[in-house]
Amino acid sequence: MKIKAVRVTPIAIKDPALLNAAGVHEPFGLRSIIEVEGANGLIGLGETYGDAPVLNLLTQCKDSLVGGSAFDLQRLLRVIQKQNAQAGTAKHIEMELAPGSKSSSLVSSAYSAFEVAFLDLQARTIGIPLVDLLGGRARDKVAYSAYLFYKWDASVDPEYAPDAYGEAVNPTQIVAQAQRMIDLYGFESIKLKAGVFDPMEEADAILALQAAFPGRPLRIDPNSNWSLVTSLKVADILRDSLEYYEDPTPTLEGMAKLHRATGMPLATNMVVTNWEELRQSVSMNAVQIVLSDHHYWGGLRATQALAKTCESFGLGLSMHSNSHLGISLMAMTHLAASVSHLSYACDTHYPWQSDEVLLGGKVPIVGGCVHLTDKPGLGVELDYEQLAKLHEDFKVCRIRTRNDVLQMQRFKPDWQQVKPRF
Amino acid sequence: MKIKAVRVTPIAIKDPALLNAAGVHEPFGLRSIIEVEGANGLIGLGETYGDAPVLNLLTQCKDSLVGGSAFDLQRLLRVIQKQNAQAGTAKHIEMELAPGSKSSSLVSSAYSAFEVAFLDLQARTIGIPLVDLLGGRARDKVAYSAYLFYKWDASVDPEYAPDAYGEAVNPTQIVAQAQRMIDLYGFESIKLKAGVFDPMEEADAILALQAAFPGRPLRIDPNSNWSLVTSLKVADILRDSLEYYEDPTPTLEGMAKLHRATGMPLATNMVVTNWEELRQSVSMNAVQIVLSDHHYWGGLRATQALAKTCESFGLGLSMHSNSHLGISLMAMTHLAASVSHLSYACDTHYPWQSDEVLLGGKVPIVGGCVHLTDKPGLGVELDYEQLAKLHEDFKVCRIRTRNDVLQMQRFKPDWQQVKPRF
Repeated sequence: MKIKAVRVTPIAIKDPALLNAAGVHEPFGLRSIIEVEGANGLIGLGETYGDAPVLNLLTQCKDSLVGGSAFDLQRLLRVIQKQNAQAGTAKHIEMELAPGSKSSSLVSSAYSAFEVAFLDLQARTIGIPLVDLLGGRARDKVAYSAYLFYKWDASVDPEYAPDAYGEAVNPTQIVAQAQRMIDLYGFESIKLKAGVFDPMEEADAILALQAAFPGRPLRIDPNSNWSLVTSLKVADILRDSLEYYEDPTPTLEGMAKLHRATGMPLATNMVVTNWEELRQSVSMNAVQIVLSDHHYWGGLRATQALAKTCESFGLGLSMHSNSHLGISLMAMTHLAASVSHLSYACDTHYPWQSDEVLLGGKVPIVGGCVHLTDKPGLGVELDYEQLAKLHEDFKVCRIRTRNDVLQMQRFKPDWQQVKPRF
Repeated sequence: MKIKAVRVTPIAIKDPALLNAAGVHEPFGLRSIIEVEGANGLIGLGETYGDAPVLNLLTQCKDSLVGGSAFDLQRLLRVIQKQNAQAGTAKHIEMELAPGSKSSSLVSSAYSAFEVAFLDLQARTIGIPLVDLLGGRARDKVAYSAYLFYKWDASVDPEYAPDAYGEAVNPTQIVAQAQRMIDLYGFESIKLKAGVFDPMEEADAILALQAAFPGRPLRIDPNSNWSLVTSLKVADILRDSLEYYEDPTPTLEGMAKLHRATGMPLATNMVVTNWEELRQSVSMNAVQIVLSDHHYWGGLRATQALAKTCESFGLGLSMHSNSHLGISLMAMTHLAASVSHLSYACDTHYPWQSDEVLLGGKVPIVGGCVHLTDKPGLGVELDYEQLAKLHEDFKVCRIRTRNDVLQMQRFKPDWQQVKPRF
């Protein structure tokens, strides 16, 4: 299927004041929406980061893809590698919480974004759901977890759009947030983004969640914001309460020591973000669960290979998320449905996003799961009015590269990036 | 694409009296030819071992595949797993030289055979070459090596069909065999199957090849038939003559010791034949090059994942072969063309096979390479007359499971399987 046109549209999507180790989410997240149009008029969709470095590379590459085949992923890779080499190595702000923003993963991130759109166009051309092109269904629905955040009420700054969740800065409010999210979406697993307040308070929040939702798997993720000593202290408290312990402390060495000391299963999307780090982690037994993310691991096929590798090396596999819309959600869902080894509920920020670029609006999450359909490809279609509106929002948005540290400094001028903070 | 019919046809193909560590090739090799016919009338092809254990499982599974989708590889796996579990675990003869004959790899072997045919039908349905379905071309042609064997002349037993290569039991005859094979096919790399005669004589054969064909990469493969002491002794002689040293000595431990002692790159298709052994090998640095084989590693997609894993863990990748016809050769070629990490000329027994089931006869090897075309799928079609003829040969053939030891005992009644022999 010859490619007739490629479009890359940056958009800005409203985001609440979610707190994390780096600072606080800005009022807008940036995404790039990819369209790869075949000579048959069908359009494959992709979605990835909208931050300047990735967006620039996507935009520089897009015209060179026209005239190639949507099946030729080798050519796609060559185009991106060549363009990236020409563009040089300009430094840019890196957000460790969003591994796709790293300079070292730019090629992989750009490739991933186009690969999804290429595969979507392939599947639409054949007339089958993407999961079938990926080898068929290990499952018909994919479970996601309730992704809880400490957060401020939108009233903290008029730039934030009002949201129904309000403030969450203590265990009681976190339990209320979980209750609301579970009532709306039926999530069976719960993840708390931590690394924000005193670690003992955050451990208390997990214990409160355990009391309120007995039997539901729980996870805590302080984004490497705890020292090894702090991580050990929290481990003592939460040892029997966690499904897995996500990125408590920095570095592969730190995680390896923590695992040796506690025996707890450690998960990561921070110390294993590429194949080289995976190799190192295996040699050190640093982590036991890899939180994959097709947005920077090299796309859907590479993540399937990652799953096979994890299975072979006795590692568990789950899925990481950054703020995203429904195209990313559906790509994650088709991928996860195709991978029998994916054994945990995946992470998603999706409930935090009120915007959408899809016809029919938000993708439904029912019983904690996204359910696959028999529609071709990703099974979703662009709402071009919405796309245009969110692209306008991008144009007037002051943000070009995510920076949660800078955003926090608007409220706390003395705030600094510290690692680990506790 | 709904599957309308699945056919599994066992065939017997003439094989010369090739010598190896186990004994001698029987006068016929067994293969299974797979046809998966879609509702659109197109037929996907596959080829694998024809030995009783695999053939039985293939035959038991085939009818259950009808009515499913050629895209549903998950369903394919479930059908095979279920059937294999029902069939129980009858013991059968295992040939270590043919890892696909192991009981433990039966499911993987059966899956691999059907997977190729499913993918071929997918590609034919879409109207693209298989390599494009596999992600596009890292290369347009795939290099193979001249695969030299010590051998007897066909006159040793009237069951063997006459062949043009005649006897090869010393360095001079091995060089003549190489010359003939290179003249016919243009191979740039040379592999000597060893483990047959005194190891010092076999090392002399490599030195003779090096003198006759300066600059051509050379390999020697005694099929684990040498002790560590012998392997070290040969290493001293051939250290600077080999591209890699293939399976000199048994066990991962033995290979790890040999590598530590010599620093030579070791290749294997005997101690790393599945993902678990790969994991062990990585932890011990036992081998540096994996000789993949889609026939038992789980098919084309799994071998692509294996390539990604090898690349990530700093392992080289090449390709192993057992006696085969053109469908297997083309599956290997499309796969190898799709994998950028595949960095060595692949092994193939193909020049030793005079029979073929393809329209137009043997696949051409030019300049040592099989060249890809733009034809859909594997790019080859069955010659049903030839298939019927070779199936008749199977029916009257006395062999049902390959056994090179038993065959050698026909000539040397005292012959025993010994490991290592030297």
